[in-house]
Amino acid sequence: MGPDIETLIQKISRLPGLGPRSARRIVIHMIKNRDISLEPLLTSISRVFKNVKVCPICANIDTFDDICSICSDRTRRNDIICVVESVADLWAIERTSCFRGMYHVLGGLLSSIEGRGPEVLMLDKLTQRCNINGVIEIVIALSATVEGQTTDHYIKNFFGNRDIKTTSLAHGIPMGGELDYLDDGTLFAAFSARG
Amino acid sequence: MGPDIETLIQKISRLPGLGPRSARRIVIHMIKNRDISLEPLLTSISRVFKNVKVCPICANIDTFDDICSICSDRTRRNDIICVVESVADLWAIERTSCFRGMYHVLGGLLSSIEGRGPEVLMLDKLTQRCNINGVIEIVIALSATVEGQTTDHYIKNFFGNRDIKTTSLAHGIPMGGELDYLDDGTLFAAFSARG
Repeated sequence: MGPDIETLIQKISRLPGLGPRSARRIVIHMIKNRDISLEPLLTSISRVFKNVKVCPICANIDTFDDICSICSDRTRRNDIICVVESVADLWAIERTSCFRGMYHVLGGLLSSIEGRGPEVLMLDKLTQRCNINGVIEIVIALSATVEGQTTDHYIKNFFGNRDIKTTSLAHGIPMGGELDYLDDGTLFAAFSARG
Repeated sequence: MGPDIETLIQKISRLPGLGPRSARRIVIHMIKNRDISLEPLLTSISRVFKNVKVCPICANIDTFDDICSICSDRTRRNDIICVVESVADLWAIERTSCFRGMYHVLGGLLSSIEGRGPEVLMLDKLTQRCNINGVIEIVIALSATVEGQTTDHYIKNFFGNRDIKTTSLAHGIPMGGELDYLDDGTLFAAFSARG
């Protein structure tokens, strides 16, 4: 195994969810399928490297000139903004097509353990957008983890004395979930929010 | 999500062991870590694409001019050849440093289900090498699966009436393995080969 191959395996094994063994498998697959895997991947990565940017308004990542395709879409409402933790969550919501407003991607969640304070939320940028576009609702779509819920409360508090409604995603039984296997917290939330 | 990103996700999700979800995670990680992940990976893949070839003698993949680093290594014995199924197996054996001979990488194992006949074994190439280098032993290092063992027998048979010793890897209890959890086949093999 030459140094070039070894470097590539090392780099791929550092990607999330992969290790040395899966990286070796992937590299062998790529080299064996040079024309249908290695070359197209190379082109594709270099296109993304050249073209993809972070949107200066919502922090979505996309290929665009000034602002991303969501921020520049005139058919979407710009008076309702959904706050998400990451671009992956933004994509997940977009896949459901249930939301036709704008987004605000946080730089991370509040975490005293990892030393992330309110500055990662970039709420001054969000406030500015609210003032300019006359935003009437902020939908906080964060994970139901301790860090997610702490951040949720912080944002709700932050906008508490302003004329903007802040809502959060509902908690309850996931579709297809069986009562018997649910944790107590979820069952409690589902009961409290019954209707 | 732009078309460039979508294409990249699609391409990555086709790599072995990955799916759409892990591909999305990897792409987001790469874009977020542009300088420490996306760019080095791009350079690394393009180097491999440019430099890596299949060795015309043993079918190892490596960066080289004429023949691979193993075939050109004068400190290795060239009168003993190890037959492996794939380059991944070759790398696994090299990591143990237990073998200092040459290799012969098969194009696949015999499989009547997938329609692979003896031509994938490239035994004429192996025979030629045996004649030129005066090979005295062929070590068949194939998996203990039905296809691996069929191929093992075929190769043994093929060299049966020649003056070359053919050996196979030993079967038995894996290191750290507990007797109680072993399957019957392994236990039987371990008993038969006791010594």
